Amino acid sequence: MIKVAVIGATGYAGAELVRILCGHPNVRLSLLTSRQYAGKSFEDIYPSMRGLVGLTCQSYSTERVCKQADVIFLALPHKVSMGIVPDLIAAGKYIVDLSADFRYSDLSLYEEFYQLHIAKSLIDLAVYGLSEVNTEAISSSKLIGNPGCYPTSILLPLIPLLKEGLIEPGGIIADAKSGVSGAGRAATLTTHICQVVESFKAYKVTSHRHTSEMEENLSKAANNDVKLTFVPHLLPMSRGMESTIYTRPKAGISSDDIRSCLEDFYNKRHFIRILQNGDIPDTLNVRGTNFCDIGFHLDLQRGVLIILSVIDNLVKGAAGQAVQNMNLMLGFEESVGLMAMPFPI
Amino acid sequence: MIKVAVIGATGYAGAELVRILCGHPNVRLSLLTSRQYAGKSFEDIYPSMRGLVGLTCQSYSTERVCKQADVIFLALPHKVSMGIVPDLIAAGKYIVDLSADFRYSDLSLYEEFYQLHIAKSLIDLAVYGLSEVNTEAISSSKLIGNPGCYPTSILLPLIPLLKEGLIEPGGIIADAKSGVSGAGRAATLTTHICQVVESFKAYKVTSHRHTSEMEENLSKAANNDVKLTFVPHLLPMSRGMESTIYTRPKAGISSDDIRSCLEDFYNKRHFIRILQNGDIPDTLNVRGTNFCDIGFHLDLQRGVLIILSVIDNLVKGAAGQAVQNMNLMLGFEESVGLMAMPFPI
Amino acid sequence: MIKVAVIGATGYAGAELVRILCGHPNVRLSLLTSRQYAGKSFEDIYPSMRGLVGLTCQSYSTERVCKQADVIFLALPHKVSMGIVPDLIAAGKYIVDLSADFRYSDLSLYEEFYQLHIAKSLIDLAVYGLSEVNTEAISSSKLIGNPGCYPTSILLPLIPLLKEGLIEPGGIIADAKSGVSGAGRAATLTTHICQVVESFKAYKVTSHRHTSEMEENLSKAANNDVKLTFVPHLLPMSRGMESTIYTRPKAGISSDDIRSCLEDFYNKRHFIRILQNGDIPDTLNVRGTNFCDIGFHLDLQRGVLIILSVIDNLVKGAAGQAVQNMNLMLGFEESVGLMAMPFPI
Amino acid sequence: MIKVAVIGATGYAGAELVRILCGHPNVRLSLLTSRQYAGKSFEDIYPSMRGLVGLTCQSYSTERVCKQADVIFLALPHKVSMGIVPDLIAAGKYIVDLSADFRYSDLSLYEEFYQLHIAKSLIDLAVYGLSEVNTEAISSSKLIGNPGCYPTSILLPLIPLLKEGLIEPGGIIADAKSGVSGAGRAATLTTHICQVVESFKAYKVTSHRHTSEMEENLSKAANNDVKLTFVPHLLPMSRGMESTIYTRPKAGISSDDIRSCLEDFYNKRHFIRILQNGDIPDTLNVRGTNFCDIGFHLDLQRGVLIILSVIDNLVKGAAGQAVQNMNLMLGFEESVGLMAMPFPI
Repeated sequence: MIKVAVIGATGYAGAELVRILCGHPNVRLSLLTSRQYAGKSFEDIYPSMRGLVGLTCQSYSTERVCKQADVIFLALPHKVSMGIVPDLIAAGKYIVDLSADFRYSDLSLYEEFYQLHIAKSLIDLAVYGLSEVNTEAISSSKLIGNPGCYPTSILLPLIPLLKEGLIEPGGIIADAKSGVSGAGRAATLTTHICQVVESFKAYKVTSHRHTSEMEENLSKAANNDVKLTFVPHLLPMSRGMESTIYTRPKAGISSDDIRSCLEDFYNKRHFIRILQNGDIPDTLNVRGTNFCDIGFHLDLQRGVLIILSVIDNLVKGAAGQAVQNMNLMLGFEESVGLMAMPFPI
Repeated sequence: MIKVAVIGATGYAGAELVRILCGHPNVRLSLLTSRQYAGKSFEDIYPSMRGLVGLTCQSYSTERVCKQADVIFLALPHKVSMGIVPDLIAAGKYIVDLSADFRYSDLSLYEEFYQLHIAKSLIDLAVYGLSEVNTEAISSSKLIGNPGCYPTSILLPLIPLLKEGLIEPGGIIADAKSGVSGAGRAATLTTHICQVVESFKAYKVTSHRHTSEMEENLSKAANNDVKLTFVPHLLPMSRGMESTIYTRPKAGISSDDIRSCLEDFYNKRHFIRILQNGDIPDTLNVRGTNFCDIGFHLDLQRGVLIILSVIDNLVKGAAGQAVQNMNLMLGFEESVGLMAMPFPI
Repeated sequence: MIKVAVIGATGYAGAELVRILCGHPNVRLSLLTSRQYAGKSFEDIYPSMRGLVGLTCQSYSTERVCKQADVIFLALPHKVSMGIVPDLIAAGKYIVDLSADFRYSDLSLYEEFYQLHIAKSLIDLAVYGLSEVNTEAISSSKLIGNPGCYPTSILLPLIPLLKEGLIEPGGIIADAKSGVSGAGRAATLTTHICQVVESFKAYKVTSHRHTSEMEENLSKAANNDVKLTFVPHLLPMSRGMESTIYTRPKAGISSDDIRSCLEDFYNKRHFIRILQNGDIPDTLNVRGTNFCDIGFHLDLQRGVLIILSVIDNLVKGAAGQAVQNMNLMLGFEESVGLMAMPFPI
Repeated sequence: MIKVAVIGATGYAGAELVRILCGHPNVRLSLLTSRQYAGKSFEDIYPSMRGLVGLTCQSYSTERVCKQADVIFLALPHKVSMGIVPDLIAAGKYIVDLSADFRYSDLSLYEEFYQLHIAKSLIDLAVYGLSEVNTEAISSSKLIGNPGCYPTSILLPLIPLLKEGLIEPGGIIADAKSGVSGAGRAATLTTHICQVVESFKAYKVTSHRHTSEMEENLSKAANNDVKLTFVPHLLPMSRGMESTIYTRPKAGISSDDIRSCLEDFYNKRHFIRILQNGDIPDTLNVRGTNFCDIGFHLDLQRGVLIILSVIDNLVKGAAGQAVQNMNLMLGFEESVGLMAMPFPI
């Protein structure tokens, strides 16, 4: 049985990892760490899992982690991850890092939007963990930079269309909306129910750091410099993310072309569901699941292809895709441990 | 593989049954019926399950059901069930009926609160499916009257205390609160988000039909006539039920006595979690699960024992307990198919 | 005291009219009609107003309305309004119609998206009631076609920019989000709290009828044919509407130009608040008010001007603007009766 | 024009005071203080009121307050108020204190549940500001201890019934539920939307400090020692409070007796609405208003009188009642400034 650790287990992404890994048939959750809650039972912090986890949070120590785990999930703030990854790699561990530290190929981009990188030598080893896109590279890697939630929902539909040249690389707009869990467990005015439950608003208009993560990957797919206009918004709910993406189809492209392109690209991939024409993705339908539901509408009169994409920001947008990436790295079926049936409502 | 049918599969309890049964390792979901949606794919009605169910809703026919299923779940309106159960019993099927039709031992009570009973001869065969309380009887029965959601949350803590004589049978008050899914999928003003999302209110004050269901079972436990004051309220959320129950402890009873009684009674039963002193049950912690979390507080100064009990009204309060009862009837471990890890939030 | 009637008083827009008009110092609410609730006290249907309205809903009759009211608000389904307006006009009444029937100058547009028009002769009398834009025409009219909610939130920021030629008329995209009250009081699956409270999704992608209403008015402002890409979405809350609008600024336009244009156009108009740079409109801040808060962000690198606009869909998007239009028609200060202080949360 | 100050203006109760006082025709809001936001414009903190308040938050100084205001509202944490009230009283000001510091007649009770009192000499001057109950005393006082939100919703229906001897003073149970705004604006896990939006739970079971405040006032009304069992719960919404109260009617008491008692006691008081038999109070109907809606149900079979009471915890439960008390102190009609029409939804 493969032993797995979650570093930073008490944030929302960490706790979601615990949920999924506890139910994973091929691994054993062996270690949880938490700076804030070291010495406390995980179940006291997330009482929904009372009686089901049985682990006490530890403080982080490379030695302990290396001794107790084969696969290590890092659910830490940006910058902290890259401080500890080198030792773990040196110890031969499999790593899925949920921070931004290993998502970029172009370090200058990372350093522009985050900070100086302190583990540059590992960048070439790291694979961007967009599971259905970089499957092969992930399968032969031991260090995954797990994608951000917005990038996951936006890149999944766009990459095939750009690769196949069905849409123009210029002028793409992504209007995205996220549940508040994306802001994490820290208590702030932004997460205070009285400030958000009757509220809808944009934030970080065109200045969200995920923009650079998306532009790097879109540019690779298009083999061309792609600039993305990205406006995130905050939804008055806990989980769920929707992206409405406006693109310009190349001349002569039909709705069938779009469909074929997406269906061929995601052929037989369990977690991508391309909806029938007219069906509209709803965050409710992917709540708690690792699915990405994608719909689209081609408006030839206005020359616009509108793509609609929904995920659960904590699952496909974080912990679920992380486990999917572990499955790929370890040679398991990619869906193992991620097949809990979706709720009807 | 045992074949299972859900009759009335497109209401919320029916759809929740589909969710659970699709993930159940020992059975195969073979038939769904729906009056309203006959001929339609179930996945079109509940698109969260796209690609996962693969069944078209059928109209009901006894012949078809008997041919295609060994175990039959009835998620039908009260009164409809008892019209079709006799034929199914005659065909030797296992039946879990989620309506009130087979919940009562005392037919006069049923007829007072519902209507004339038209399958009286079956009453003696039927077992009230409160899984942890009537385990043995359920295990040897083929006809289960599955409890209502309010009764489940209120009877589970009260029955042991009444059986052991730790509380007075008189003057019990249950102040209960339910998410709107308990009202079903029918679109009414009561379920309109604009009427309920900013609203909290009682309804059917002392006149809810579940009162009689509870009084019958409490009286059996107490071996005495028990009258219950029951006030249900509607919560501005989808799933979840909390009951705050006010009782009078017998003289000399301590907090430890209460704890021992509950822990002994539910010793080793997976789905009942008796919380530590001071911990307070929260509907969030049982959302989507078959758990019933129970806490209590003994106020000796005021002579009151306050019991707090939470369930998910659609799972332990309906579909989950129904599957647990099927497990018991068929000799499976009671938790099979019901072990999906709870969400942290 | 001017006597006012609300026809169709028990839908959400109608009830909101009742709320506002009851608190209006210059008018007296004299008549309410309702097909569904004729003979019932209005306060029984909206018990928040118990003791404050004192009117029984009547069935509609032109005679009664003409006798009892000087100003008539029509909060009726599209198509019904135009059947009764001619008689009311003939009787010399002031009319604010909240349906689409008198919003269009170009009847062929109306007939393409709604149905045959049966009061064509009145089209020339009718004024499109976008209060701050058509102020003069409204002030001298007796028949107002009150704008839709989406058009109000989208036209208010766009019209000045198009009129002044600061943005390109081509390629405008409006990604709009509305609370569920916009769907009205009818109980449907779409409004069922369990279907929407955990849900976010687009609907009527590029096919919403408000598109034509907006295109007509944008084209007038631009003096040019404007095509709008419009995607509405449904928010899991009761009230509030946000539109994120993507436009292309003309060459050389600066952020200051945009600001000056908007501030000059709405100079001294109480209900339009142009936010400071960096401030982001939030539906919470306009809940229950007649305000439209507008913010914008110019991204020169990507050549995009992003405009953010929020209103309360039932107030500025319906009943509030209707009363504002009445104020203009009758020569009152436009804000009379609409000055209730906004809630902090 | 009477000048009014709000001390602690940026908490939720303080901001609600600002909202109401800005719209009050007889007073002028002249000073706001805030420790946290001194020097900042109030409108930047509560942008819903942009353009409507025009005041910058000041730090507190007795001199400034005394110079700039005749009436002073204190929306401060318990304990802070009593430190500054003596100077304000000495300066002859009218004071409404929203903390607990001046709510108790029996100082030992206050000191048991809060802390040592440091302004004991003022206790005899202070009047408990339950507006409809202590009207006369309030009208001739200059120092009001404004009631807590739970006590307001629970005392209003109980006091008349205890005074008239219609119910037993023993065994009263209040099961109360509050929106999260009652927890204040401080960002904590308890107010994090992800922890509460899908959650319902009790808290401080029998240990909430409001219990002692209620017991003191119930005992006065009953002229007898009254012990109250009080369990508060947290609702997944912003505003609103409901209390379901279980009492035992005296022998021979009828439903008409209860009605007469309540109607006579609150005869002609604008903000108390006694509902008709069968009507059930709903927090939605009092949202944003100063109303307390009261319903009741007498169950003779079980010997229980159930009372249902709803308020908006921030209005009648805090700022609204505070302004009502100011009106009484200053000899205004009690409803001045509090008459904004309720929203239909």
